[in-house]
Amino acid sequence: MTDYDVVIVGGGPGGYVAGIRAGQLGMKTALIEAGPMGGMCLNWGCIPTKALLESAWRLQQVRRSADMGVVGVDKNAVRLDWAKALTRMRRIVARLSKGVEYLEKKNGVTLVKGRGEPQDLKTVRVGEEMIRANKALILATGSRPDSTAGQAIGLRFIEIDAFLSLEELPGSAAVWGHGPVAVELALLLALAGVKTALVSAEKKLLPALDADLGKWVAKRLKKAGVTLHAGRSLAREDETGIYLDDSTLLDVEFVVNGAERLPVLSSLNNLDLELDQGFVKIDPFGRTSVEGVYAVGDMTGKTMLAHGASAQGICAVNHLAGIEEPVDFDRVPWNIYLYPEIATIGLSEQTLEERGIEYEKGFFPLTANSKAVLQGETDGFVKVLSEKKYGEVLGVHIVAPHATDMISEAAIAMQLESTALDVGRVVHAHPTLSETMLEASLGTRDLTIHM
Amino acid sequence: MTDYDVVIVGGGPGGYVAGIRAGQLGMKTALIEAGPMGGMCLNWGCIPTKALLESAWRLQQVRRSADMGVVGVDKNAVRLDWAKALTRMRRIVARLSKGVEYLEKKNGVTLVKGRGEPQDLKTVRVGEEMIRANKALILATGSRPDSTAGQAIGLRFIEIDAFLSLEELPGSAAVWGHGPVAVELALLLALAGVKTALVSAEKKLLPALDADLGKWVAKRLKKAGVTLHAGRSLAREDETGIYLDDSTLLDVEFVVNGAERLPVLSSLNNLDLELDQGFVKIDPFGRTSVEGVYAVGDMTGKTMLAHGASAQGICAVNHLAGIEEPVDFDRVPWNIYLYPEIATIGLSEQTLEERGIEYEKGFFPLTANSKAVLQGETDGFVKVLSEKKYGEVLGVHIVAPHATDMISEAAIAMQLESTALDVGRVVHAHPTLSETMLEASLGTRDLTIHM
Repeated sequence: MTDYDVVIVGGGPGGYVAGIRAGQLGMKTALIEAGPMGGMCLNWGCIPTKALLESAWRLQQVRRSADMGVVGVDKNAVRLDWAKALTRMRRIVARLSKGVEYLEKKNGVTLVKGRGEPQDLKTVRVGEEMIRANKALILATGSRPDSTAGQAIGLRFIEIDAFLSLEELPGSAAVWGHGPVAVELALLLALAGVKTALVSAEKKLLPALDADLGKWVAKRLKKAGVTLHAGRSLAREDETGIYLDDSTLLDVEFVVNGAERLPVLSSLNNLDLELDQGFVKIDPFGRTSVEGVYAVGDMTGKTMLAHGASAQGICAVNHLAGIEEPVDFDRVPWNIYLYPEIATIGLSEQTLEERGIEYEKGFFPLTANSKAVLQGETDGFVKVLSEKKYGEVLGVHIVAPHATDMISEAAIAMQLESTALDVGRVVHAHPTLSETMLEASLGTRDLTIHM
Repeated sequence: MTDYDVVIVGGGPGGYVAGIRAGQLGMKTALIEAGPMGGMCLNWGCIPTKALLESAWRLQQVRRSADMGVVGVDKNAVRLDWAKALTRMRRIVARLSKGVEYLEKKNGVTLVKGRGEPQDLKTVRVGEEMIRANKALILATGSRPDSTAGQAIGLRFIEIDAFLSLEELPGSAAVWGHGPVAVELALLLALAGVKTALVSAEKKLLPALDADLGKWVAKRLKKAGVTLHAGRSLAREDETGIYLDDSTLLDVEFVVNGAERLPVLSSLNNLDLELDQGFVKIDPFGRTSVEGVYAVGDMTGKTMLAHGASAQGICAVNHLAGIEEPVDFDRVPWNIYLYPEIATIGLSEQTLEERGIEYEKGFFPLTANSKAVLQGETDGFVKVLSEKKYGEVLGVHIVAPHATDMISEAAIAMQLESTALDVGRVVHAHPTLSETMLEASLGTRDLTIHM
């Protein structure tokens, strides 16, 4: 039996960041992970899909380069070499995963290779080895995709990791799902030249987010050539293809599962953790119902986002060190890569209406922003929603080339409970895309300058 | 004689934004401008140079696309068609200038074409016409480049507007200057394939900014093939070429003037305005020494930046309307487009040292940022400087692909007097470039996660 202060089960963005911070704060820490470091996000999620999307997007930029005065590109000759894009992606994944390993060791964290199975609240079995957590156990076992939608079509329903290990692109494929993962996968396939369909049970894409975003995404995917089948299910398959519940024949080689994700709890039977709607129940500091056992990341169902998990990891370790800084889950940004990007934080317009909160709206289109015009990328907008009486920013929803970087301005504004006019008073550099934040913020009080 | 509440002289980013805001607040407003709307920035500065830089940068991206798995580009065939890039640039400039005209009219502002010459504090002559400002006169006459450095070489020293009207690129050219305008011009020429030199009297580039930025810029320009001649002057010319003061022969067709700028005061003789180091002296609300006369923008020498001028324009009009919101010139961001971009706000390390302010430094390189790795653009860094005792953010200096958008997070953090740990507590989306802000902020207290 080896003794530690803290034992972390799971090396994804929740667990590995908790490990680094625990090491920084001087705790004797073990991090248990069976696979490569970085979990779903780094190995089969955010990072590999974005690496491939960047390649696919570069192809579009090369094809459209004549618009910018760049000549000599033979549009018919230029194409995405999938094998090369895969090689690049795998190199990046390996480099970043090794980087995480390095960071753990640098901070004095012991990496234990294997599947961690808690025996009780202080003991974790890894194969033959028993590891003891004297201060706390931090669970970060993550999530896996819900595969039930594909049961009717058997082997032609594949998971993302299987898709990422294909050496050749299919001629045609479908994606199942309605969330960020699904819409990014559909765009990736379409931009890479695959005949692509998106099938979802939900009638609306990104239903959890502001409705303007979902509507924009539907247009974006259609423009990229994706056929949308919303409000449908996968009904059956035969040698002619895959059939939806309305008897539509999907002429595709396979369907990639981009469904919502379920918590991975299979190794936790000995702990008898209280659950909440299927996820592990936690308090604001990540404490589970079992004393000394914390849970962070997807298994808690709080954000299902890598950065949400990391914030929870830091919060849990901070709490162990006596620092009480809960994660404000209402102020965690979402980021989706559809070239342009989507980023959003806070409340949607429909939620404000449902809750009966009086609000004001500022809207600014990228067509009226100089930098967007200069870059030749004017598809998009910024929408700022603020509370009517005092003007506090309640939600920001962005479609823009650098939306995922722009959203951090909104995140800090909201963390500090700024009003829209506080944002509007900040001098924003010209010409930049971030001026759209200024304009939309001023727009909540009809003070937009450039529209 | 036509009567107005407010008469604005000059249609650049200071004057035209003042016009829009004055119209919004219900003031009867006239805006006097002899040239196209938008002033230097829109017609011969930020906008046209950035339009051409975007084209030149796209060429680089096309050439490097094989790194991303995009194949079929013939590197020898692909080139920048300068005529096409110019056409695109002129179309953008015309569109944006028309847009400003539209915005003025939409807000009820009367546009008066011509050179405005104040006769006294309430009357402006435009040709034969006399215009009366009953409430206030707002001067926004802008700046012009200092051309003294080129006197020794006569006609081969050309201004930016002359350069932008050339239909063909020279084989070789030099740029004079050490500031943002000069370094951007030098990069533009080099990326477009011109043999380029940069000559400056200053030994350091961007001497007003954090020294790390100037050092990085020197490397960036050298990498793009620019020859640097620092601490030199233009001494003479003959048929063999242009000579520097150390007898170096510059084998270039001409030198473009990218020097610092001087205020345009030639039409203001009747007003007897008090000056401060050659610029018009103003109080925190833009009031000059003459009652009822405001001055904004470059002529006041406060920022020499378009967005600084716009903020001053709004501040002056607000003041007229009884709203007292002075521009905080210490919190105006700078933005420079060198692909990657540079953005900076607040105090530099050398200023902190000069002033004896104890500070902490957080530094994060783009090589350790996932999104930068995904985009294949890892050249750059974020440096956060915070006050030692309480941790307030005092300066942020960024080199990164979207630095000019990222800086707005720092701007709002500083406006709200946040500490570096306040920024570090904001959940930043992953994977994004803005995570570097989080990391560098945490770095001020040795709490960086990914390094």
